[in-house]
Amino acid sequence: MSRIAQYFPILDWGRRYDRSRFSEDMIAAVIVTIMLIPQSLAYALLAGMPPEAGLYASIVPILLYAVFGTSRALAVGPVAVVSLMTAAALGQVAETGTMGYAAAALTLAALSGAILLAMGLFKLGFLANFLSHPVISGFITASGIIIAVGQLRHILGIDGGGDNLIALVESLAANLSQINLITLALGGSATAFLFWVRRGMKPMLRRMGVGARLADVATKAGPVVAVVATTLAVWGFGLMDRGVAIVGDVPQSLPPLTMPDLSPSLIGQLFIPALLISVIGFVESISVAQTLAAKKRERVSPNQELIGLGAANLGAAFTGGFPVTGGFSRSVVNFDAGARTPAAGAFTALGLALAAVSLTPLIYFLPKATLAATIIVAVLGLVDFGILRRSWGYSRADFAAVAITILVTLAFGVEMGVSSGVIISVLLYLFKTSRPHIAEVGRVPGTEHFRNIHRHTVETHPSVVTLRVDESLYFANARFLEDHILDRVARDDAVRHVILQCSAVNEIDMSALESLEAINARLCEMGTKLHLSEVKGPVMDRLKRSDFLTHLSGEVFLSQHGAITATTTSARADRETTANAARTT
Amino acid sequence: MSRIAQYFPILDWGRRYDRSRFSEDMIAAVIVTIMLIPQSLAYALLAGMPPEAGLYASIVPILLYAVFGTSRALAVGPVAVVSLMTAAALGQVAETGTMGYAAAALTLAALSGAILLAMGLFKLGFLANFLSHPVISGFITASGIIIAVGQLRHILGIDGGGDNLIALVESLAANLSQINLITLALGGSATAFLFWVRRGMKPMLRRMGVGARLADVATKAGPVVAVVATTLAVWGFGLMDRGVAIVGDVPQSLPPLTMPDLSPSLIGQLFIPALLISVIGFVESISVAQTLAAKKRERVSPNQELIGLGAANLGAAFTGGFPVTGGFSRSVVNFDAGARTPAAGAFTALGLALAAVSLTPLIYFLPKATLAATIIVAVLGLVDFGILRRSWGYSRADFAAVAITILVTLAFGVEMGVSSGVIISVLLYLFKTSRPHIAEVGRVPGTEHFRNIHRHTVETHPSVVTLRVDESLYFANARFLEDHILDRVARDDAVRHVILQCSAVNEIDMSALESLEAINARLCEMGTKLHLSEVKGPVMDRLKRSDFLTHLSGEVFLSQHGAITATTTSARADRETTANAARTT
Repeated sequence: MSRIAQYFPILDWGRRYDRSRFSEDMIAAVIVTIMLIPQSLAYALLAGMPPEAGLYASIVPILLYAVFGTSRALAVGPVAVVSLMTAAALGQVAETGTMGYAAAALTLAALSGAILLAMGLFKLGFLANFLSHPVISGFITASGIIIAVGQLRHILGIDGGGDNLIALVESLAANLSQINLITLALGGSATAFLFWVRRGMKPMLRRMGVGARLADVATKAGPVVAVVATTLAVWGFGLMDRGVAIVGDVPQSLPPLTMPDLSPSLIGQLFIPALLISVIGFVESISVAQTLAAKKRERVSPNQELIGLGAANLGAAFTGGFPVTGGFSRSVVNFDAGARTPAAGAFTALGLALAAVSLTPLIYFLPKATLAATIIVAVLGLVDFGILRRSWGYSRADFAAVAITILVTLAFGVEMGVSSGVIISVLLYLFKTSRPHIAEVGRVPGTEHFRNIHRHTVETHPSVVTLRVDESLYFANARFLEDHILDRVARDDAVRHVILQCSAVNEIDMSALESLEAINARLCEMGTKLHLSEVKGPVMDRLKRSDFLTHLSGEVFLSQHGAITATTTSARADRETTANAARTT
Repeated sequence: MSRIAQYFPILDWGRRYDRSRFSEDMIAAVIVTIMLIPQSLAYALLAGMPPEAGLYASIVPILLYAVFGTSRALAVGPVAVVSLMTAAALGQVAETGTMGYAAAALTLAALSGAILLAMGLFKLGFLANFLSHPVISGFITASGIIIAVGQLRHILGIDGGGDNLIALVESLAANLSQINLITLALGGSATAFLFWVRRGMKPMLRRMGVGARLADVATKAGPVVAVVATTLAVWGFGLMDRGVAIVGDVPQSLPPLTMPDLSPSLIGQLFIPALLISVIGFVESISVAQTLAAKKRERVSPNQELIGLGAANLGAAFTGGFPVTGGFSRSVVNFDAGARTPAAGAFTALGLALAAVSLTPLIYFLPKATLAATIIVAVLGLVDFGILRRSWGYSRADFAAVAITILVTLAFGVEMGVSSGVIISVLLYLFKTSRPHIAEVGRVPGTEHFRNIHRHTVETHPSVVTLRVDESLYFANARFLEDHILDRVARDDAVRHVILQCSAVNEIDMSALESLEAINARLCEMGTKLHLSEVKGPVMDRLKRSDFLTHLSGEVFLSQHGAITATTTSARADRETTANAARTT
């Protein structure tokens, strides 16, 4: 692949495009477009943006992703968690519904796009790895709860808001007296209907003899049915005059050309939120892309994906949108509907553009409660407290990271939540590696195998101690190793040889090297030799570049068996010399 | 050892105290006292404190350390780097020389004592390990330069100050016109004399037939000679009237009982500096204590050392001192002079108390330039740019950590310097482990050994790929592993078995487990089986607690040899089946 084609994957698949791929892509696009119209409006509501921004955020970004992205099926646009993070970030700089709020959304998308693009160009995609899977699960679970509780006010028809669970519950309780029963009836029945569509309709259709594919499509069309039915109800009964909040006027237009405000003060305020949004968005998107690609034995390139998502977000920033990423549900629908190439995304963009210029008058009477219902039903699928049970069973450290992420996200909001998740998992990892497992080993009788003396019946020799360190040696555990070895030798005068078995040591950094030098020197003062065995090639290469080996009182043995043979033989020789000396004096 | 004796090591050595130990301790105490008088005054000057505070900070802290500390030879008191950090911390809350400054010093010592005590009681000594050896070397080198440059103004007799190299050089340049030539003559000759004492006097004395021990003691007494000579010069020629800055009135008193100001706002301002001072002080002290203990095949207990240093700092806080720690030079002198038990420290404290009540009038005429000279000569011994060369030769990551620590310390001061050193070394470590070495291995012909196919001539099988991961599997490298394995298999249709050789995998955390599950599932979709070999006991125990093993498409083999035998046999069987199938159809 040429260098240009590497950055423009479209040159690769575009050349082989044909009629059969076209028709499959087209069918997928129609299905996805139908699903995306209510979803885009709903996530705009969640992000605190005007409804049309949700459509705009799905049009140009999809086109740009089609040019730069590597996944064949990924569909980008507003998604739940990123929309929540957008609302949290923008809430700190402007009031929802103001001009400043929508303007700040453009800045946030531009920053996020620039960060993703930079990460892609400088191949920094690996940074996202510091978000561990359990932390992401915990974060998404907590975000789902915050989103669902946050949307309850639209179902109840009351005011309120907040970016963490405590604030949301307090605001719900304070405003409960405003409750609008008609809104509640509409929103409640939409929610119940959508839950039923999700859980009960598909099995029912299948029992009625409907084909699997069609039943699936019908399920995905559920939100459209809810939107149409509740819009008709509001229009027919004039419910907007009875206090039901509706979407109202939506401009009939293609995405406008917008210029994000790039003033340093706004950038300063939004940089950290944009970074968190970028990383979370990338992690979510890449998981979806990889899952779908693997099903066709294809691969996505993480760094090129960053470029694709960066371009999509810059596109959103210049066309009246807000931060976007690859969404799970829309991508799965796209994939299941048979999308063959990113052209399916382009056709979806076309469909949404058509909706933006022609269908917007029809959603004037759409109640906000219906959009809230689609959000609630969608995000409750994200909530998975099972991660707490699974991580508890597997490892306490992972459990701690998940639990802290969930609690901090619920109590202090998304930004604190995701940051504390990353920090706590890094600290726990460092803590674990700073106290490595060190086993004293002996020979399994009759073999050349060496095992932990506390787990197996093994042969040892009083003057030789072999320690196997199950961790790379680096600054955080260098002193631990020093303490462990010197403690072991200081309380046992018989020891004349200490062998470090290094089969699990993948690196020795300079701190550890200095600790080894200190161990060597101190053992020397105690009349004990230090030996190494089974040192790996790369580690040995590095040791040879220092002067450690010239100072080492003992030897470096290729195998542990060789080390034991040599040291016990020399110990025997020592004993005999001492015995002879004793005889002669 | 009983539980009480564990926290009061004095109960252990105190019981066995006798006349011979007493006389040896007494001799050591006299030598150390003579050395400590000018040193204590000088470090008080460096910390921006009145001279008597240096003496006070050496009296009660030494006594308390004698009760709680575990090192037989460690001498606590003001030391250069901690005094510099004290000055930097106090400079942020008060003006040097004011009452508020000395009061804040008490608070800083109290906080530092409380932090050390808490770290000791909660056994958090391992936290200090996150300061890697190269970072400490870099930090001490940069601190030494800042201290030396900072003292130049006393030698030149000019005003100025600053807590980083840039500010210091600027202030020196700005005030150069104030230069006092008499001060410069005094200070310059004191500096030259002390350098000569350090470098040239001992060899000269030895050539003149003086014993090694006596020559050593004479060398240590050099600063006392400089102090006496310059004090007499100032007194005899009335130089204080010619602009030479002198120590002046020093109260003739035992350490006063002082109550540190524990107001929340002051604690808030000083907490982070106190934490950094505690950690740096502990690291410096424990290295000295361990070095000296090892020479006598003794051990110090790091957590008990924290308690000892914590008590010493609390002592300083309540008796008019400032933060203290175990100093290198004073401890080595104590050790070389033959101190047998912490009682030597107690006798030193007695000597200093005697000096505080009787000798202080004699230092009225002591020029500050002489104290600056003793500081400069002492700290230049700390400067070691060789660490840059050594770390460059050994590992680029260590070099980067050292270079950044030195540059940030010089440019932004000690607090930023030490923090950035810790952060950068943690990040570099995480970066390294996030991209582990993964070797594809094959069998060395005729053996059961498996080696990297790129380094050795080995046997492989087209349908079997064996990968050896040289790192624990955890969240930061989980996705890297996923990418690596799937990339390897996606571009090679012949692969039917992937074996992960886990001999160097010391842990698999939950993120890595989920990645393994994903790898297993995706390989399954490609018609390829995943096997593990040589999984360690603790790792296997944990895998058994998850349901990974029930989903695993392949097997877990005890040895890599067994894995290869089984998979190549099954591959042959597959081929034969295919061949038979081809024949029958």
